[in-house]
Amino acid sequence: MGKLVIVGTVAFDAIETPFGKTDKILGGAATFIGLAASHFNVDAAVVSVVGDDFPKEYLDIFTDRDIDVSALEVVPGGKTFFWKGKYHNDLNSRDTLVTELNVLADFSPVVPEGHRDAEVVMLGNLHPSVQMGVIQQMAKKPKLVVLDTMNFWMDNALEPLMEVIKKVDVLTINDEEARQLTNEYSLVTAAQRIFEMGPKYVVIKKGEHGALLFFKDEVFFAPALPLKEVFDPTGAGDTFAGGFTGYLASTGNHSFENMKNAVIHGSNMASFCVERFGTERLLELKREEVSRRLHQFKALTQFDIELK
Amino acid sequence: MGKLVIVGTVAFDAIETPFGKTDKILGGAATFIGLAASHFNVDAAVVSVVGDDFPKEYLDIFTDRDIDVSALEVVPGGKTFFWKGKYHNDLNSRDTLVTELNVLADFSPVVPEGHRDAEVVMLGNLHPSVQMGVIQQMAKKPKLVVLDTMNFWMDNALEPLMEVIKKVDVLTINDEEARQLTNEYSLVTAAQRIFEMGPKYVVIKKGEHGALLFFKDEVFFAPALPLKEVFDPTGAGDTFAGGFTGYLASTGNHSFENMKNAVIHGSNMASFCVERFGTERLLELKREEVSRRLHQFKALTQFDIELK
Repeated sequence: MGKLVIVGTVAFDAIETPFGKTDKILGGAATFIGLAASHFNVDAAVVSVVGDDFPKEYLDIFTDRDIDVSALEVVPGGKTFFWKGKYHNDLNSRDTLVTELNVLADFSPVVPEGHRDAEVVMLGNLHPSVQMGVIQQMAKKPKLVVLDTMNFWMDNALEPLMEVIKKVDVLTINDEEARQLTNEYSLVTAAQRIFEMGPKYVVIKKGEHGALLFFKDEVFFAPALPLKEVFDPTGAGDTFAGGFTGYLASTGNHSFENMKNAVIHGSNMASFCVERFGTERLLELKREEVSRRLHQFKALTQFDIELK
Repeated sequence: MGKLVIVGTVAFDAIETPFGKTDKILGGAATFIGLAASHFNVDAAVVSVVGDDFPKEYLDIFTDRDIDVSALEVVPGGKTFFWKGKYHNDLNSRDTLVTELNVLADFSPVVPEGHRDAEVVMLGNLHPSVQMGVIQQMAKKPKLVVLDTMNFWMDNALEPLMEVIKKVDVLTINDEEARQLTNEYSLVTAAQRIFEMGPKYVVIKKGEHGALLFFKDEVFFAPALPLKEVFDPTGAGDTFAGGFTGYLASTGNHSFENMKNAVIHGSNMASFCVERFGTERLLELKREEVSRRLHQFKALTQFDIELK
């Protein structure tokens, strides 16, 4: 069973979409990553922070899935990170209405002893200095470090972001952010610029339009599953990252060929995430459903042209 | 060798993109369809109209590729259809600056005798009444009728458009037009609404985001090849249609399984079209290049997850 370290937010989200709205519900990058990764044979630990307003039922969600929460710090008297957002009608863009950092403002991550030799590290969206802190605590160089980030850090912490990008094997980033980071419109060229920054692999996430995996001169594409209804995109990118790293950690094979499979597994997990609010769909997701939908991904993409 | 009837415009285009502009060059739906289809083993005839300002060198382009132009009417003293457009910076949208219908205004199509028994009919973008006229001239019901249309006809000729849609097997349409035609945002639901209108198959073209093929409850996805540079998207949808129908006519196999291959062949041809202005790239395209890029499509999409 491969070890996986997950760093990222554990949060309360309040979400409004054209289909409805929620009060404060469970959210955060590390939450979605952990839930998705728990569908694979991995020994995962979440490194994050919450306040003592974080309910025990939410903590149980992690422990019920054998996710190590010994490094999920609970700050006495502290309040959990809170994000409130409203999606536009096409669900492709959103406005952030509230961001309360709360306990996240002074967060200093500590990787649990038992996971300092993890083969795979998933650095979910957080301040790049926190992401760097996790890398530095690893006892030996992990086989694979994957970093997810967003435009907020490009705008507000570009220097430490570039420092941590240097250290990672895989950067996952969405299309607009890839363009912002590289000043290149073409995603092919953007990926090449990112290679020059350090990573050997680049995953560019295009939401409902799928994800591209770049490696040297090669490229692999995983579509998003065409769904009748996308209900709430919150956490889809993190769920993708959880499926991606969960699969890679469980197989121990980090080749480009196997990374293609990982991108499909990530897309598969993300296709469930968007069907309900927040983590709702992931929480009740069964192994048979995951397996059945993998068949759909195969039918969606595999063809039979004989090549000469 | 399967027979293919192609109806659509043969035109002069003047194009402006962020990368440059052209004077009047060869364009038109039937032109792009014919050029793409000529890469397959088909006996194709173009049904269209031009003025006597249409140069012999352009006519030779068709005949050099064994495309039957006996039904490409040349109107004495008439002027060829002219379209001028300017693309926005992201190439995903464009403004039409000039549309001169000219000889197209009074066009009455005549399918050549030798092609009235064609197995495959490709109704390229034109007035739906003209498209219907072609169907009615076929000696027997073709095995496969494919129709391409655009929002202009939904706005200006919805009733005859709905009449011709009833008669076709495959509708190819872009994503925004599918939404307009059905009033459904989800492309999955839009495809189901289109099934109710008549077609058994629906291809929804998403430009740089690929194409979806729907049949009953099944769906297949062909990505667009990620390119370093897209130079001019003019004709890409028609080139896709030409590769799609050219392949189907050449194989004589119109099953859903083979239609998946056809969608890949269509995407493959379209990936060349966008690399230069207008038909430039298609005119010098070699068989080896087409074959080589098919390998890239396979590498782009094929993965190796064992399913349980």
